Amino acid sequence: MQNSRTISAPTGKLGVLLPGMGAVATTFAAGVIASRKGLAHPTGSLTQTANIRLGKRTEHRSPKIRDFVPLASLDQLVFGGWDIYSDNMYQAALKAGVLERSMVESIREELENITPMKAVFDKRYAKNLEGENVKTHSEKWALIEELLTDIENFKNTNGCDRLVMVWCGSTEIYHEAQEVHSSLAKFEEGLRTNDPDIAPSMMYAYAALKSGVPFAMGAPNLCLDIPALEELALLTNTPIAGKDFKTGQTLMKTIVAPGLRARALGVRGWFSTNILGNRDGLVLDAPENFKTKEVSKGNVLDGILNGEQNPELWGDIHHKVRIEYYPPLGDNKEGWDNIDIFGWMGYQMQIKINFLCRDSILAAPIVLDLALFLDLAKRAELAGIQEWLSFYWKAPQTLPELEPIHDLFKQLEKLENTLRYLMGEELITNLGMDYYQSVEEDIRY
Amino acid sequence: MQNSRTISAPTGKLGVLLPGMGAVATTFAAGVIASRKGLAHPTGSLTQTANIRLGKRTEHRSPKIRDFVPLASLDQLVFGGWDIYSDNMYQAALKAGVLERSMVESIREELENITPMKAVFDKRYAKNLEGENVKTHSEKWALIEELLTDIENFKNTNGCDRLVMVWCGSTEIYHEAQEVHSSLAKFEEGLRTNDPDIAPSMMYAYAALKSGVPFAMGAPNLCLDIPALEELALLTNTPIAGKDFKTGQTLMKTIVAPGLRARALGVRGWFSTNILGNRDGLVLDAPENFKTKEVSKGNVLDGILNGEQNPELWGDIHHKVRIEYYPPLGDNKEGWDNIDIFGWMGYQMQIKINFLCRDSILAAPIVLDLALFLDLAKRAELAGIQEWLSFYWKAPQTLPELEPIHDLFKQLEKLENTLRYLMGEELITNLGMDYYQSVEEDIRY
Amino acid sequence: MQNSRTISAPTGKLGVLLPGMGAVATTFAAGVIASRKGLAHPTGSLTQTANIRLGKRTEHRSPKIRDFVPLASLDQLVFGGWDIYSDNMYQAALKAGVLERSMVESIREELENITPMKAVFDKRYAKNLEGENVKTHSEKWALIEELLTDIENFKNTNGCDRLVMVWCGSTEIYHEAQEVHSSLAKFEEGLRTNDPDIAPSMMYAYAALKSGVPFAMGAPNLCLDIPALEELALLTNTPIAGKDFKTGQTLMKTIVAPGLRARALGVRGWFSTNILGNRDGLVLDAPENFKTKEVSKGNVLDGILNGEQNPELWGDIHHKVRIEYYPPLGDNKEGWDNIDIFGWMGYQMQIKINFLCRDSILAAPIVLDLALFLDLAKRAELAGIQEWLSFYWKAPQTLPELEPIHDLFKQLEKLENTLRYLMGEELITNLGMDYYQSVEEDIRY
Amino acid sequence: MQNSRTISAPTGKLGVLLPGMGAVATTFAAGVIASRKGLAHPTGSLTQTANIRLGKRTEHRSPKIRDFVPLASLDQLVFGGWDIYSDNMYQAALKAGVLERSMVESIREELENITPMKAVFDKRYAKNLEGENVKTHSEKWALIEELLTDIENFKNTNGCDRLVMVWCGSTEIYHEAQEVHSSLAKFEEGLRTNDPDIAPSMMYAYAALKSGVPFAMGAPNLCLDIPALEELALLTNTPIAGKDFKTGQTLMKTIVAPGLRARALGVRGWFSTNILGNRDGLVLDAPENFKTKEVSKGNVLDGILNGEQNPELWGDIHHKVRIEYYPPLGDNKEGWDNIDIFGWMGYQMQIKINFLCRDSILAAPIVLDLALFLDLAKRAELAGIQEWLSFYWKAPQTLPELEPIHDLFKQLEKLENTLRYLMGEELITNLGMDYYQSVEEDIRY
Repeated sequence: MQNSRTISAPTGKLGVLLPGMGAVATTFAAGVIASRKGLAHPTGSLTQTANIRLGKRTEHRSPKIRDFVPLASLDQLVFGGWDIYSDNMYQAALKAGVLERSMVESIREELENITPMKAVFDKRYAKNLEGENVKTHSEKWALIEELLTDIENFKNTNGCDRLVMVWCGSTEIYHEAQEVHSSLAKFEEGLRTNDPDIAPSMMYAYAALKSGVPFAMGAPNLCLDIPALEELALLTNTPIAGKDFKTGQTLMKTIVAPGLRARALGVRGWFSTNILGNRDGLVLDAPENFKTKEVSKGNVLDGILNGEQNPELWGDIHHKVRIEYYPPLGDNKEGWDNIDIFGWMGYQMQIKINFLCRDSILAAPIVLDLALFLDLAKRAELAGIQEWLSFYWKAPQTLPELEPIHDLFKQLEKLENTLRYLMGEELITNLGMDYYQSVEEDIRY
Repeated sequence: MQNSRTISAPTGKLGVLLPGMGAVATTFAAGVIASRKGLAHPTGSLTQTANIRLGKRTEHRSPKIRDFVPLASLDQLVFGGWDIYSDNMYQAALKAGVLERSMVESIREELENITPMKAVFDKRYAKNLEGENVKTHSEKWALIEELLTDIENFKNTNGCDRLVMVWCGSTEIYHEAQEVHSSLAKFEEGLRTNDPDIAPSMMYAYAALKSGVPFAMGAPNLCLDIPALEELALLTNTPIAGKDFKTGQTLMKTIVAPGLRARALGVRGWFSTNILGNRDGLVLDAPENFKTKEVSKGNVLDGILNGEQNPELWGDIHHKVRIEYYPPLGDNKEGWDNIDIFGWMGYQMQIKINFLCRDSILAAPIVLDLALFLDLAKRAELAGIQEWLSFYWKAPQTLPELEPIHDLFKQLEKLENTLRYLMGEELITNLGMDYYQSVEEDIRY
Repeated sequence: MQNSRTISAPTGKLGVLLPGMGAVATTFAAGVIASRKGLAHPTGSLTQTANIRLGKRTEHRSPKIRDFVPLASLDQLVFGGWDIYSDNMYQAALKAGVLERSMVESIREELENITPMKAVFDKRYAKNLEGENVKTHSEKWALIEELLTDIENFKNTNGCDRLVMVWCGSTEIYHEAQEVHSSLAKFEEGLRTNDPDIAPSMMYAYAALKSGVPFAMGAPNLCLDIPALEELALLTNTPIAGKDFKTGQTLMKTIVAPGLRARALGVRGWFSTNILGNRDGLVLDAPENFKTKEVSKGNVLDGILNGEQNPELWGDIHHKVRIEYYPPLGDNKEGWDNIDIFGWMGYQMQIKINFLCRDSILAAPIVLDLALFLDLAKRAELAGIQEWLSFYWKAPQTLPELEPIHDLFKQLEKLENTLRYLMGEELITNLGMDYYQSVEEDIRY
Repeated sequence: MQNSRTISAPTGKLGVLLPGMGAVATTFAAGVIASRKGLAHPTGSLTQTANIRLGKRTEHRSPKIRDFVPLASLDQLVFGGWDIYSDNMYQAALKAGVLERSMVESIREELENITPMKAVFDKRYAKNLEGENVKTHSEKWALIEELLTDIENFKNTNGCDRLVMVWCGSTEIYHEAQEVHSSLAKFEEGLRTNDPDIAPSMMYAYAALKSGVPFAMGAPNLCLDIPALEELALLTNTPIAGKDFKTGQTLMKTIVAPGLRARALGVRGWFSTNILGNRDGLVLDAPENFKTKEVSKGNVLDGILNGEQNPELWGDIHHKVRIEYYPPLGDNKEGWDNIDIFGWMGYQMQIKINFLCRDSILAAPIVLDLALFLDLAKRAELAGIQEWLSFYWKAPQTLPELEPIHDLFKQLEKLENTLRYLMGEELITNLGMDYYQSVEEDIRY
């Protein structure tokens, strides 16, 4: 049994700042508010509903995670954020069309009180969007100062003890890391010289980390995964986590691919198509934005089915991913996967999966868990990359010398064993030989 | 780093005895023979094709399992068995229709040399079958003596160093454990008094264990899971493993259900239908035989989605399983699953999975792995129930005080960590905090 | 151009009597009422929304059916009926759970005014049902007299000009035609002697036909298809139509099978499973009631893919139909069909269809169309079996010497050409050679 | 009963010329040859396997089509053609990988004797192709003269009585009709001046029609549907038919959409994706070639679900079609359709269809039927556009003032009634009132 870390208690209010207050953000906030009032259940959130096994199986200890680690409670949360539209959360939730109107009406007052601050916006990074609630400064350094002030004001106005920030905004266009991203010094120089390679999402992250506020990147944007921001996170002892919420089809892929790997089944091809009808789909209809998503989704299989290690089984997988904007579905999303596999002696089989899911419903509990776990990490003095939160990401961030882990089940074990480690509980290995050794002795002698 | 167990080397021939020499057994033997000749690849077999990660991720050590633990090689295997039809394996493989004729012809001679011994058969236990290659004694004890002689003769004739036995026969009718099964003494008394509750499969298992031959139960039959045979296994230091090969739909279920559990998604219903056209389907068309299968398949979900622990999410799952005999599919098998799930705030979603699989192709590598791992267990002096082989079973056997583990990924971790334990390698927990602690220190100070 | 029939005008009110006022009946009535108020659109009803092409293609004449033939309008309809529960239609609609609550509330008053008369009920014919709003006479003849009075009273109270009756009740147990059903005289004798082979549905049909009220049988019950009632229909100049509304999976089957037939594709098997969660599903969970449905559904394929005529293609079809009660779906219904086909040189292909449908939503417009078309038939003096309404039935009624037509497209052509015939329009054959003959002459000479 | 047309008898050999001798052409020829030898059955061919109903239902007359109309028999067919690769049909069939090797071997000699003539090829029209067996003239008129000579030589060498030509080549790039296509005179001028807008497929068609040889266009190429070639067809009394063989997903669409139309169900969206791995897929991977296919496929729904006529149901259909090159499937092809429909009161439902088909297996019988029916048309003196063959096409050709008919069932009725018309049999309208009128009279009086 290890010693547990010292973790400060989650007293006072925790402010959750959301850059991007559309479907995901409003579904998240509405769900928390409704859960507080007993109108809904926060299903899909590990922090609120999952159990964690502790000790030996025969001890039958499986508390809720929220009863095991010191997390902020739903009652302590306060919501704020930025958006390029000036709609308050009540209006935005109705426009998003995710939740039934009667539910939205029942928490109207709370939602109306959450209004967006003016956003940092750069049309080059989101071609299909256009909004009016934007900051007017054209100098990046001035924008950073505004964001720092926004953060400070929000904390004071709402009497928050601590803050976290979770990006719920759009996918930016594809771009690759440049010289300006390679160190904190160069990045700050770039801010001062208005370098066009500094994307809006990076500016939010910079302002958060500078303020010591943990930051999570929900979209596939190039943002946290640049040396400059990793450096800043360590400097200010701030946890970071990213990127790209793992929701529909990729979630399913990281469930099924580990199953094929486990049984050593070969894979010849994996064709994935996705049809969706919400604003996310509209943004991704622009090829430069789709590319960002495509790259984020594409590596998932390679990470699980290692073709270098096992070329006979996975050396030649035709992996094709398509995302199609199809308005009849609205916020619903459908994935259709066709998987061509082969088994014993090369005989071929197929798996076809049709996942009728809902984008924001799957993303909202991730926002909640990240907010609470990042706040825990901050209090436990875990700084920088939080690999133990890989579970939530399509493209988990790791140290440069490590391969990211995509297998959902290894990700979950990493998360759970990290919690056990933090609390000084024994790690679980599923070995279990001890149960049997005593028995054998009982019976035999 | 723990000390490794002393494991005797796998020298000499290993005889694999197969009660039931139909589609699964012939596909298994043909695949091993073809692999030896370089005509096919033993895909789907962990012992032959899977890698196992050892040590830290940065060590990049992932040998093949067969290069890590001392297993018998394919060249050392010899095949034999019993069947109620007198077809040799060449004839039986053609009748089964699983493999392409050209493949069967290319190894005709080897297959023709494998002929079944006369089987112990009791029509009450398999209503839809009828065969002529059966032992004629009506006294159970006399049948046992014949089986013991069969085993001994096979070992001597073929110059085997060791034997294992893997049941590849049919599903017997549903029956529950009785007094006669409750201890070895009562069981042996029942054999002498011809107790009708002793099924043919139990008689094979008794003969194997009595001879110190490890035994695996591929069908859902009540057999190994009675106190009498568990007692005998410990007495003769013999490993046992069961039951019911986890192949098509249940395999998929134990992949997907852990994924839903991981993400804390609620489940309202799971409807599974299975259409198949082989002899297995014909046997299961008899209601009493289907019941045995149904019970075996039914507990899988409860084991993963624990309704007592988490009634809001899994307290009321309508789980319905159907198996339908549908001759157009032949040995192919299709599962169609419709899963009704719910997430954040109770919103409903659906997953539909159509698995176009092949029964014997998925079962054959399991037979191989079990033969090699049970032989390993014998040499490593692991006696009785082998919970670490849960991976292969629809209904894994455990100690009475333990819940069986159905989650494929926990099963795999248990298997892998057991191998690491046997070889004195460090267990893998996926914690990985150490990678990060040094980095933080590097950068910060 | 033929002469049209003389058809009396649809003046005054048309009363629609519904034995069985559950999900289908309430969805039907609610939809008509909501359509009258402009709150909904009667989609799926040919009489309200379909067009019919008249004359040559170049004439571009395609009026709505309701503008072409003299039908009663929605405003002229009045609703009534019988049920074993005393709920009014508002209560019954809420219990059925088909329509959104806000829709039901918006027409609450109209629905509350529709209350069921006491039903004729016989538990032997519907094992899983139990109700309290039933007629207490045990003598069948007395029950008939009550029904005749109910009909007369309803007509007078509501000031109806004409009536039709559409059975929306449950599936009765399977039974076959007996001596008592073989002539009107014997049937009436049976009513007087309380013959147990006279089912409740037959008594409603007898009362309707005796009153000259057209009758349609929405369930697969043995009812109209007995000589006694056919005789009565002709005697009273009354149209009859049945049986078993063609809604989800069978509808799809009579769409796809004609397509396979058209392209001369062979069929080896057709596996259909159906999962549904409403009261209909509960009734069909009783094997004797399921049998009635199974027989009704089973003949559909044979009627389209004629194995006697073309044994190479359709001589050996494994057709299996399953209906499974699965409560999570509620009134939703899902069909999953797997169709094994073969083409050129015998090569095999598969079609898989997953139909996520809604039972009552598909049935309600059929009730409306039948009510209006049967009333038209009555006014057009078409008595007895209405084969031209085969379109609406899983098991269409025909003369004994004719094979029923199951192909949805031949059924539609029959329906449309019958309307053209009644109105003196030219029948459509899709020949169209004339368009081309003139052109050739124009160009060539 | 009408008088039949005078149709000359199909005496002597019929030569079938195939521009493009890849997967479709070899599967067609191999199937005909194997059928002649009794090794296979020409399933999927109406001319060989379908029956046609004649007269009243009670007459029970349903001969095979080939026994009803005077068609050439399989024994009379001779095969030839052109290809850019010099492989004979044996080699090409093996490369195509559609048929099992053992089948190809069993007719090796016949296939080896069919070798391609040098092709007219223009890389601008098929970017992803490259071949060496091409005519070297760069002057279009010279190429035409070579084609005319090829046709004449083939006829004489093989002793053919008549010829037909069926394009089985690739999809050319998208281009629209120009001035040069607007009349025969301008087209011939363009041939002499090497107009780049004259595609290779047009040159084959010109040569065929000039020679009085019926021509069918199996790809979606702009070819027959230009005024120049329609004029030539009438001038030489030659039938033409096109375009784009209706095989997998579009076939299914023209089966299911008429079903939705029949039942007056609304459609909000239809998403179709297609994955295929053969050379056709490779060609369509080039965007300019895909566009040709997309346009051909896109109009199918509009033709069936007429949004102008019925805007409430079909006025706003999101129809999206995708074709994806996915090598693991080889010549197999999978369509996945998701159809969003709505019924009574606007309630939504979905249909999902997964069609696991084989491209060449579905196309080959179409080639056969077109060859035989076009030869019949020629002998029956039906010149120009053959609208009665719409059944076989994704984009059926019609007179300019007519809308093409896409509904598979109207297409079939048109085809069948044309055959009845040609043979002087009564057209079938499915009215059938006469059966009932006599009965009523029998019973009533």
